[in-house]
Amino acid sequence: MARSEESLAGGRAYRAFDVDSVKEYVAGQEEVAERLGTKTPGEMRAREVGDGNLNLVFIVEGPGGAVVVKQALPYVRLVGDSWPLPLERAYFEWNALTRQAAHQPHRLPRLFHFDALNALIVMEYLTPHVILRKELIAGKRFDHLAEHMGIFLAETLFHGSDFHLDKAKKKADMALFADNVELCAITENLVFTEPYFDAPLNRWTRPQLDGPARALQSDRAVKVGVQEMLYRFTTKSEALLHGDLHTGSVMVTGSDTRVIDPEFAFYGPMGFDIGAFLANLFLAYFAQDGHEARPDERHTYGEWLLETAENVWSVFSETFARLWREERTGILYARALFEDAGDETGATIGLHRFLGGVFEDAVGFAGAKMVRRLVGLAHVEDMESIGDPDRRAACEVKALLMGRELLVNRTTFGDIYGLSCLARAIRRERNLL
Amino acid sequence: MARSEESLAGGRAYRAFDVDSVKEYVAGQEEVAERLGTKTPGEMRAREVGDGNLNLVFIVEGPGGAVVVKQALPYVRLVGDSWPLPLERAYFEWNALTRQAAHQPHRLPRLFHFDALNALIVMEYLTPHVILRKELIAGKRFDHLAEHMGIFLAETLFHGSDFHLDKAKKKADMALFADNVELCAITENLVFTEPYFDAPLNRWTRPQLDGPARALQSDRAVKVGVQEMLYRFTTKSEALLHGDLHTGSVMVTGSDTRVIDPEFAFYGPMGFDIGAFLANLFLAYFAQDGHEARPDERHTYGEWLLETAENVWSVFSETFARLWREERTGILYARALFEDAGDETGATIGLHRFLGGVFEDAVGFAGAKMVRRLVGLAHVEDMESIGDPDRRAACEVKALLMGRELLVNRTTFGDIYGLSCLARAIRRERNLL
Repeated sequence: MARSEESLAGGRAYRAFDVDSVKEYVAGQEEVAERLGTKTPGEMRAREVGDGNLNLVFIVEGPGGAVVVKQALPYVRLVGDSWPLPLERAYFEWNALTRQAAHQPHRLPRLFHFDALNALIVMEYLTPHVILRKELIAGKRFDHLAEHMGIFLAETLFHGSDFHLDKAKKKADMALFADNVELCAITENLVFTEPYFDAPLNRWTRPQLDGPARALQSDRAVKVGVQEMLYRFTTKSEALLHGDLHTGSVMVTGSDTRVIDPEFAFYGPMGFDIGAFLANLFLAYFAQDGHEARPDERHTYGEWLLETAENVWSVFSETFARLWREERTGILYARALFEDAGDETGATIGLHRFLGGVFEDAVGFAGAKMVRRLVGLAHVEDMESIGDPDRRAACEVKALLMGRELLVNRTTFGDIYGLSCLARAIRRERNLL
Repeated sequence: MARSEESLAGGRAYRAFDVDSVKEYVAGQEEVAERLGTKTPGEMRAREVGDGNLNLVFIVEGPGGAVVVKQALPYVRLVGDSWPLPLERAYFEWNALTRQAAHQPHRLPRLFHFDALNALIVMEYLTPHVILRKELIAGKRFDHLAEHMGIFLAETLFHGSDFHLDKAKKKADMALFADNVELCAITENLVFTEPYFDAPLNRWTRPQLDGPARALQSDRAVKVGVQEMLYRFTTKSEALLHGDLHTGSVMVTGSDTRVIDPEFAFYGPMGFDIGAFLANLFLAYFAQDGHEARPDERHTYGEWLLETAENVWSVFSETFARLWREERTGILYARALFEDAGDETGATIGLHRFLGGVFEDAVGFAGAKMVRRLVGLAHVEDMESIGDPDRRAACEVKALLMGRELLVNRTTFGDIYGLSCLARAIRRERNLL
C-alpha cells in the first residue's frame, strides 16, 4: 500500500489519539473489534503505556481480548515539538514487520492493522511478556533467549539479503527503505558522530566520567574507527535490518521471545543488528557490579550474560550456514559455480569468509553502540538505575573502555569467545577512574 | 523529469528512428536545430554509426554544426529482440551525465536534449575525437590521458558519495538508480557469474584456450574471489558510478579526453570504475605482442600503458585527497571530530585507510573485468583484432593469468606499481599454453 495513496485518501488528516478516541478508532476496525470481542467503545478499557521517546502506545482491552495500538508522533516525544520526526516511520516499521513475519512470525507480535494516514499499527498485546532490559537488570535468566535471537537474526538477515532475495525485488526494497532518511540520521548523528566531539546533547555521569569522555574525543584511533563503522552503516546495503535491536526492543517470558519496534529499518550491514544486541548484553554485564547487594553476588549472572552473547553468535552462525546451504537462491555464490559444479567446498569457504566479515562488523558496531549509551544523548536503564553515581561511573568507565577496544581492535578478535575474555579482563581492572 | 510523466505524455509512443525520421525529429527541437543551423530536414545529413550492442547512434549534420542522437533500443542489438532491454536506461544515462556534468563538464560531450519517451539523448558530436581503444590498438600515446581520467574518476566518485553529498539527497539518488536493475543484471551475470561455469554464451579462442578456460571454472580460489567482488558490486552503495568505464567508453584527441555512455550507472563501489579502466589498459598491454610486426617493437609502448595505469591511480588518489580536504561536506568523517578539533591528522589517516580499501576493490574488479573479456560473452577488439589464433591465444592466456591473480591475490598488492611488476612478469612467462 503506497504511502501517498493512503495519506491523501478522502482528504482526511492525521490526528494523535488519546485513551478515549483510540477506543472509537479500534471499534471501527472490524478485525480488531472482533479480537476485542466488542464493537462498543464503552465496553473497552484503554491506557497509554508508551515509555519510548517517539510514539504513543495504547493498550486497548475488551471482553474478548486486548490489542496494542502504536502511533507515531510527529516529533520526538522526549524533547517535544522542537525535534520533528516524520510520521512515515510507521510505514517503514509496518513494512519491516511484514517482511520479518514472512520468516519469523512467532518472534513478533501478531499484526492486525496498519493505517498509514494516522501512522498507526494495531498488533497483539503481548502478555505476560516484559521488556528484556528490565529483566536483565533484575538478574533474571532466559534459557531460550540466545537461541531465539540467534535464529531471528539469521532468518531475517539472510532472507533480507542478496543471498536469498530476487535481485530486482531487493533493489526495489532497498529503494523503498532508502527513504527512511530521518531515522537513519538519528543513528548517524547520535551513535556515530556526536559522542566523539563536544556536541551539546551529549551527557555522562559528571564529574566522574569527565576525564574518560574528553579523552575519547581526542582519541584519534577511536574516531577513525567509529567513522569506518559509520561508512559501513551508510554504504553497506547488505540486508534489511531491524535497525534498533537493543534489549529494550525485545520482550520475553520464561519460554518466549518477541522482537518489536523495527521503525529504524533500512538496508544496511548485518553486523549492525548483531552488534546492537551484543552491545546491550555487554552493557548489562558491566552494570551488574552496580546492582549487587553483596560483592560477587552477580558474578555467575554476569557469566550467563557473556554465555548468552556467545550463543547468540554461534546460533546465528549455524543457522545462517544452514540457510546458505538450503535457501541460497539469490545472485551471490550462484549454485552453478559451486554445488552444481561439484564444489560445495568452495561455497563453504565463501560462507565462512563472509561470516568473518559480519563478525568484524558486529564487533565494531557493538563498540559504537556501547560508547553512545555512556557518553552520548541516550543512555540505558542498566546503568541509569545504579543510584550511587560513583558506583555507576565505575561500571560505565569499564563499559566505555570495552566499547573503545571493540572499535579500535575490531579485527583482533577472531571469535565471540575473545569478546567474553575481553569483558572479563576489563571487569577485573581497577583504578580506571 | 519523472519517467512516468514523460512516457505517458499525450498518449504518444516510443518509435525507433532511422536516418530520415531522425532529421525530422531534431528539426523540431529548437535548441538542437539552432546548433545545426537549420530547421529544414532537407538541409541536414544523417548517418547511423552505432557500433555498440544496445543503441542506435546517429550523427546529424547541418550547415551550422553537427549533433549526436543516441537512442536506446528495446532489445540487445547484437542478439536481436530475443534479449529485451528496458528503454529506461536512457533515463539513467541522462541522469548520470547531468550529475557528472556538474563537476566534469569538459570531460563529457555537451548535453543538448533528453527525450524520455523516445529514450533518446541529443549531445555534442565529438570531432576529431576517436575511441580510445582503437588508438591503443594502433599504438598511439596520449600525454594527458592519465591525468584526465584520474581527475574524472576522483571528481565524479568523490562528489557522488557520502563524503560530499547531503545524506537525504544521496539516499534518494541511490533509490533512483536502484531501478537500473536490468543493466546491473548484465554486469552481475556476464562479468561475475557466467565466465565461471559452463554458461552457453561463454566463448574463447578454441581450442587454444580450452584448458585455461576450463581450469578457471574449477578454480575454487578464483570463484570465491569473484563472488566476493560480486558481493561488493551488489551491496556497496558507495558512489554514483559510470558503471562501464572501459576504453571503448572514452574518446580522445591528442589533447582532449571525453567519457561517454554511462547507461550502466548506479550507486556501487568506487573501485569498480577504476578497476574497469585499469583492466582495459592491462588487456591492451597483453595484446601488444599480438600487434607487433617485429619482436619487441611494442615494448616501450607497453611500458607507456603500464605507466598510464600507474598515473591514473596516482592522479585519482591525489585529487581525491584534495577533495577530501576541501569539499568533505557529507556525514562521513565530520569536520567537528577532526579539523575543527585540531585533528587533521586523524582525517588524513581515515582518508588513506579508505583509499587502501578502494585500491583493493579496484584490483579485484580489474581482475574480474579482464577475465570476462577473455572467456565470457563480450570480448575486446584489442585481442579480437589479432588475426592468428595461436598468437591471439598466447596474449589472452597471459591476460587471463593476470586477471586470476588480481582476483585471488587482491590484498597482496599494496600499490599500483605492484600491478605493473605483475604484468611484466606474466608477459615474460613462456609455455603457458
